[in-house]
Amino acid sequence: MSFNYKLTIEYDGTMYLGWADSIDRAIEFALQKLMGEKCKIIGAGRTDAGVHALGQVANFITTKQMEAQKIITGLNYFLRITGNTVIIKDCEEVNNDFHARFSAIKRYYKYRILNRAQPTILDKNRVWHIHAGLDFDSMHSCLPFFLGKKDWSCFRGGDCQAKSPIKTIDRVILRRQDEEIIFEIEAKSFLHHMVRNMVGTLVGIGLSRFKIADMEKIIFSKDRSQAGITAPAHGLYLVKIDYP
Amino acid sequence: MSFNYKLTIEYDGTMYLGWADSIDRAIEFALQKLMGEKCKIIGAGRTDAGVHALGQVANFITTKQMEAQKIITGLNYFLRITGNTVIIKDCEEVNNDFHARFSAIKRYYKYRILNRAQPTILDKNRVWHIHAGLDFDSMHSCLPFFLGKKDWSCFRGGDCQAKSPIKTIDRVILRRQDEEIIFEIEAKSFLHHMVRNMVGTLVGIGLSRFKIADMEKIIFSKDRSQAGITAPAHGLYLVKIDYP
Repeated sequence: MSFNYKLTIEYDGTMYLGWADSIDRAIEFALQKLMGEKCKIIGAGRTDAGVHALGQVANFITTKQMEAQKIITGLNYFLRITGNTVIIKDCEEVNNDFHARFSAIKRYYKYRILNRAQPTILDKNRVWHIHAGLDFDSMHSCLPFFLGKKDWSCFRGGDCQAKSPIKTIDRVILRRQDEEIIFEIEAKSFLHHMVRNMVGTLVGIGLSRFKIADMEKIIFSKDRSQAGITAPAHGLYLVKIDYP
Repeated sequence: MSFNYKLTIEYDGTMYLGWADSIDRAIEFALQKLMGEKCKIIGAGRTDAGVHALGQVANFITTKQMEAQKIITGLNYFLRITGNTVIIKDCEEVNNDFHARFSAIKRYYKYRILNRAQPTILDKNRVWHIHAGLDFDSMHSCLPFFLGKKDWSCFRGGDCQAKSPIKTIDRVILRRQDEEIIFEIEAKSFLHHMVRNMVGTLVGIGLSRFKIADMEKIIFSKDRSQAGITAPAHGLYLVKIDYP
């Protein structure tokens, strides 16, 4: 007899080497303390070092049945006393064929840019601070280039393990909120570093390092060196993941 | 010859005993390092321990003239290396009669409540977490009671030094943003703990501990013990201060 549990997880990624082998291990450790058995945590997205999550999803298979509320409370207890910056927001028992990574149908990310002269202390490690004024309208005009089914090699990180560089971006939003510029993006899946490389390129537009007319050329080039820098990890948030 | 400088300041209040004798001292220390002279920092609002600021204002009078940008950079350098969670956002030279506290014509505060089952790690010490569901509509219906020129003794903290309990509240807003309920309030000045006591009372409404019909009675009573609890400091932000 085995049971499959789905977890929804928030974390501050600042002190971790990323989801893989770091945050997942912290949860596995708490799980072993709680369940008295080693379980493998399967995450939906392998966020990089420094990237945060508001709604990462993971699942684990166990021989022991336990009330979802007890799993939440128990894991949060062991995560807290071990000094982890990870919180289980939700837990539910799911079918045995549920797989956090392969069952996912959509992933939502957001990226926070703080655009003002002085850095922030309240949002330290939460936003990318850019002190030079960004041209929001030019950045906004570029959004259509970030949409649709394309070969996104120009935004593909060097150690990306995806079989194909072709991905379909379903939605992109760029909005201002007080002193911030926030980029939101939705797709079934992404290449490694894809969102951060897109944001770096958008910021290049905002700083007039690229022209809007360059965007098509950059994407057609399929050449990483043509696009902008990789935006720092600490502005990126895995927001949520949809399942059927 | 003397010069008067106005500072706009952001801080994470978590590790301080409040503005008075704690945050102001940290800035005075940095100022002495920078200017080579002891200056008194005069703040617009004496925020309590744990309260944050997005736009606290202070001024200081010095015998030395210095470029505003150099003051910002210099103070931020000394604040950072001394491990303070305080940032100078802006500096400008002002008339000698400018007084951060007495010249202020309006103060803006906001209070962030996180209303969801699980606590947060990304906004730890930034929001008041309430896990029980709050009745937003009831809370919103109460807003008119919080407006206008009244004797606010029911929301007055025990060690308040104001001459009169009569203050004029110019504006209150209650809005939802994702999982948060945010309370915003504007007035020339406030009694000690007034905003936190208002929020504690509003939350009492949201949890059905008070009825909307009780609000008038509570305010008329002029009795602190009739109103709700004092909301925790770490959800409160001094947002900005207006001058003529």
